[in-house]
Amino acid sequence: MPTDSVTLVEMAPRDGLQNEALLVSTAIKIELIERLARSGLTRIEAASFVSPKWVPQMADGQAVLLGIKRQPQVSYGALTPNLQGLKAALVAGADQVAVFTAASESFCQHNINASIATSLDRFAPLLALAKQSQIPVRGYVSTALDCPYEGAVSPTAVAKVARDLYQLGCDEISLGDTLGTGTPQRVIAMLHAVSQEVPMAQLAVHFHDTYGQALANVYAALEQGIRIIDSSVAGLGGCPYAPGAAGNLATEDLVYLLEGLGLKTGVSLASLVQTGRWISTQLGRRNGSKVGLAWMK
Amino acid sequence: MPTDSVTLVEMAPRDGLQNEALLVSTAIKIELIERLARSGLTRIEAASFVSPKWVPQMADGQAVLLGIKRQPQVSYGALTPNLQGLKAALVAGADQVAVFTAASESFCQHNINASIATSLDRFAPLLALAKQSQIPVRGYVSTALDCPYEGAVSPTAVAKVARDLYQLGCDEISLGDTLGTGTPQRVIAMLHAVSQEVPMAQLAVHFHDTYGQALANVYAALEQGIRIIDSSVAGLGGCPYAPGAAGNLATEDLVYLLEGLGLKTGVSLASLVQTGRWISTQLGRRNGSKVGLAWMK
Repeated sequence: MPTDSVTLVEMAPRDGLQNEALLVSTAIKIELIERLARSGLTRIEAASFVSPKWVPQMADGQAVLLGIKRQPQVSYGALTPNLQGLKAALVAGADQVAVFTAASESFCQHNINASIATSLDRFAPLLALAKQSQIPVRGYVSTALDCPYEGAVSPTAVAKVARDLYQLGCDEISLGDTLGTGTPQRVIAMLHAVSQEVPMAQLAVHFHDTYGQALANVYAALEQGIRIIDSSVAGLGGCPYAPGAAGNLATEDLVYLLEGLGLKTGVSLASLVQTGRWISTQLGRRNGSKVGLAWMK
Repeated sequence: MPTDSVTLVEMAPRDGLQNEALLVSTAIKIELIERLARSGLTRIEAASFVSPKWVPQMADGQAVLLGIKRQPQVSYGALTPNLQGLKAALVAGADQVAVFTAASESFCQHNINASIATSLDRFAPLLALAKQSQIPVRGYVSTALDCPYEGAVSPTAVAKVARDLYQLGCDEISLGDTLGTGTPQRVIAMLHAVSQEVPMAQLAVHFHDTYGQALANVYAALEQGIRIIDSSVAGLGGCPYAPGAAGNLATEDLVYLLEGLGLKTGVSLASLVQTGRWISTQLGRRNGSKVGLAWMK
């Protein structure tokens, strides 16, 4: 594996806290984001402009984005399901926005109450305004391996949605193993199909660790050439489909792997471990990072 | 990766319980071993004939081995540090025995109070009697990647000890990442060196999951041709060097990976998950298997 660098996209303030039972104050969210930036992370998904009716945990997105003390080298992102969300994110000064759809129809319908085609139609005006505002847009593809309603999702279906998002103007596509059920061979097959449609350099992987496979999947994805990886400090975030189970891949465990492989991340692992411990204490939650539990310093 | 089979060597009754704080009754140990055998595991390290002065958790080795209802296809193993231990294991009807040394001098000295060379000298009469009794002998090499006293251990040092054990007559060498600090590139380099001295088919890997890297390391080892893997149901066993941290790789998470890769194990994952949950309850311990936490059935 070549010795180059990997870009980490930190999910804890958004995908992480969104799936925690506890409501977290705006002040804690701001402190979490500032700590993550200080540890060397350069891309942080900081807020979501989804309707607070659906995701009350994220109702203070604007206050969070406006409240953080910004680091110039850090890109603060926001999830924006529609034009209204994008406008709110732009007012709040998001550096990047993200849209989300799925590779399976049933999941898309359950998750955002629209078909995949309708979800893409909705993104078109959003992408137009984002381009005009010179804001990069990330596209999330959920259920890139398995769907809770349909079972295994074909690599061809994932490739099609990824291509559509890319053609609509998304700068990067994040492929999500929403259920955390994937294993390396399936990850490889899926990446093989998707990379026929979207250059590997524009692809990110987003693995949940529900079945403990996330880091093995990361390793397989790295071997395929993936260099953008989503993760969440302290493994923040649960799995709505398996209560009590693990959620996101912990950023600490990922950074430990990447350092071991000689891949640069720009992140201070010691600082990250401290932040993971701090937020776990704030949430009264077990630290979901094994590095966080074992780290001696 | 070719679709063949992997042999699992189950560590929970010995390496697992040995490192748990709670003393477990002989009856529970016997039930654990019987449940593991029923789930399809064919190699179970069931007892240790180390002095009870050092490892009180294992003082009932003879009672355990004599007490289990045997399955004909299962090999019940025992750890035997010396000739006296081997004799006791033979009386108790162990199908396989194991000796242990280390790849770093300081660890060997701290762990068994002998130099590596002295430890090997002690094994010679043991191996002679085991051969005479037609009992296969496994050799454990601890600190195959890092030593708590010396830091990184060179692949050459590991290869030398593995070769010596093999030449002494060990049928199989299990390479232990005792601290759980390893990452895939280092595993590959170590396996590359060792497999120059001992055929890959005679090598096993024994990864601790202290830093969450075990399954990624397994995947890398499988790519190198390893087909014998040690693990422990429910991730039983702690890490004496990092209290509160994770211990052994959980067998459930390993079987999930192998099934996903199309590698046969002969194990019923559903049955294994039930056993992992049962023993975690018995120990009043959090289930260390993510599959065990997430499994729905």
